[in-house]
Amino acid sequence: MKTSDGVLEAYGHGGDLWTASAKFGVRPGDWLDYSANINPLGPPPQALEALRSGLAAIVNYPDPGHRELKKKLSAKLGVEQENLLIGNGAAECIALALSGLDIRSVGVVAPCFSEYGQLAEAYGAEVRTIIGREENGYRAEPAELEPLLKQVDLLFLGHPNNPTGLTYSLPQLRQIAELAAECAAYVVVDEAFIDFIAPEERQTLLPELQSHPHVLLLHSMTKFYAIPGLRLGYAIAAPELIRRMARKQVTWSVNGLALLAGQACLQPETAEYDRRTRELVAAERTYLRGEIDSRLGWRTWPGEANFLLLELCEKWTAERLQDALGPKGLLVRSCAKYDGLTERHIRIAVRDRADNDRLLAALAEVHKEGGQR
Amino acid sequence: MKTSDGVLEAYGHGGDLWTASAKFGVRPGDWLDYSANINPLGPPPQALEALRSGLAAIVNYPDPGHRELKKKLSAKLGVEQENLLIGNGAAECIALALSGLDIRSVGVVAPCFSEYGQLAEAYGAEVRTIIGREENGYRAEPAELEPLLKQVDLLFLGHPNNPTGLTYSLPQLRQIAELAAECAAYVVVDEAFIDFIAPEERQTLLPELQSHPHVLLLHSMTKFYAIPGLRLGYAIAAPELIRRMARKQVTWSVNGLALLAGQACLQPETAEYDRRTRELVAAERTYLRGEIDSRLGWRTWPGEANFLLLELCEKWTAERLQDALGPKGLLVRSCAKYDGLTERHIRIAVRDRADNDRLLAALAEVHKEGGQR
Repeated sequence: MKTSDGVLEAYGHGGDLWTASAKFGVRPGDWLDYSANINPLGPPPQALEALRSGLAAIVNYPDPGHRELKKKLSAKLGVEQENLLIGNGAAECIALALSGLDIRSVGVVAPCFSEYGQLAEAYGAEVRTIIGREENGYRAEPAELEPLLKQVDLLFLGHPNNPTGLTYSLPQLRQIAELAAECAAYVVVDEAFIDFIAPEERQTLLPELQSHPHVLLLHSMTKFYAIPGLRLGYAIAAPELIRRMARKQVTWSVNGLALLAGQACLQPETAEYDRRTRELVAAERTYLRGEIDSRLGWRTWPGEANFLLLELCEKWTAERLQDALGPKGLLVRSCAKYDGLTERHIRIAVRDRADNDRLLAALAEVHKEGGQR
Repeated sequence: MKTSDGVLEAYGHGGDLWTASAKFGVRPGDWLDYSANINPLGPPPQALEALRSGLAAIVNYPDPGHRELKKKLSAKLGVEQENLLIGNGAAECIALALSGLDIRSVGVVAPCFSEYGQLAEAYGAEVRTIIGREENGYRAEPAELEPLLKQVDLLFLGHPNNPTGLTYSLPQLRQIAELAAECAAYVVVDEAFIDFIAPEERQTLLPELQSHPHVLLLHSMTKFYAIPGLRLGYAIAAPELIRRMARKQVTWSVNGLALLAGQACLQPETAEYDRRTRELVAAERTYLRGEIDSRLGWRTWPGEANFLLLELCEKWTAERLQDALGPKGLLVRSCAKYDGLTERHIRIAVRDRADNDRLLAALAEVHKEGGQR
């Protein structure tokens, strides 16, 4: 694992409360964390109840076949169980795709989730990066992807993309899938944040996956259901791909409490939680964008997930903003290390109104006190 | 993952309550499970309390650096933190050794834990198996290991070995470590069950690990602390080996509740639980061996862990015994698939007196009703 000293993303990600605590002297439990993108409602009550009442199950090995969770997911998603691979977080699914499909070269569209490139390198694959055009929200058009698809075994595509929150249209996704098939390359469409988009508005290849044997969809249950500490994700793809990935999976890699919570999250009773989450996130995202624009004048992008990419004005850098906010118990994610972005880009989560007002007040305060030293 | 239909070890292991339930119609929670080797005391109260009071922490990502657990382990084991790799179960540590140390060929002494060979094959390594001599408790002498060490990159050695429960002596371990160094091979000494042996009686290379840069010790926290559902293990080795393994590790592969429980298990307050566990297991192991000998006449081995290898008399096979015990809600582990063992070998856990008496009564009953059909 790569670590870089002195920055809050020492392990390459946001949400590292331990590094932040060591730096600012705030206790891990006391942070208001805008650096990790977690549903502000917290876990569904059904999941917490399932964990409380099912805690004793830790004395048993987890089901190595993830049978109950697969059954529930299969029913919810309208795919067969053989199309599903349950992983120890979406990150394990990425690792299993790389090793199970024997990937030697990987394409990424920067800026994007850093694990794509980091895991690819760890598994000995070459990483080819193209930078999405800024005027296109850092996305790449199918025509820009074609030369990349000719060079790589597998392309990662964030949808919505992290850290921009922007998506591709269904016609674009179809075109990319067809180009990939022509190039005999796989496309991993990372839909880790797609649950934050209302089902009727989602652009996804899921219903037509049978026509796209080169496409893998990647889902996470940790962001939407606010259980990142438990680790739970899954891949949806053709049975042959799923089998090849599963062959590389360590027995019991998905722990029993993650399975238990995941099953509870898929109960029909959580539908109301799902709806409230999407309403809250959409409303607060709009609120945050409006306030940031009017009070600070910083640029934002029209993301569709539970986070926003921000470009700070010239008197700030991400690192100095983190240093100003840290002592106040507030964490934001620096995007300085993302290919294609600059030291003035940060990512913030979308939380509830009280938290967002605390963040906005803190931002206004430190901004008034000045950035440039 | 390999599965074989119709047997209780469909996923290659004991403790699969879901497969057993599908076969016998007993609910997963209702099994008396002798097929998995878990501390009969259940988790330490401190661990359960830490989980109950820390459940809310699932909304945060786990510490990707496992810092608090490493600190506690380092103090307990008398090694530096850079000698430690925390894994999502010992199984992940095995996988990371195979991939991180670029292992192309693996040696095993059968019968042994099936994951050694299964994971090695999954990672593309060739597996060379020697069968331990029965009269030597299925162990291999250093002289028998030397030709194997010359042929492989890495040797797995169970200590105590699963499913026999037998150990190597310290002089033997030293000799094997030296042979390995001469052959430029690694030795993974799998000490997953060593905590069941009193510290003063343990034969281990741990205190002299600095002199053995080719040796990796593998520990599990799930058996002794009865938390297999949570997944937690670790490797102890030279910093260079640890770094190479960590590079292949998926970020956050160890979940937050496993870390929390693991930290609680290492509190000084659990010393009494540790002592009681070892006393109980030693006494019940002796009791079980004596009763099985006197009441059934089946052969056992003088294992030092919390399980026993049994050879049934000729009128039984493991599978028919499982079929006879299943409807009574009792699970035992068939060892028919272990290289070097036969369809008459089974493994049973060591549990508390009430459970053991229930097992013994059931065994006596089905034995009286007859085995051979």
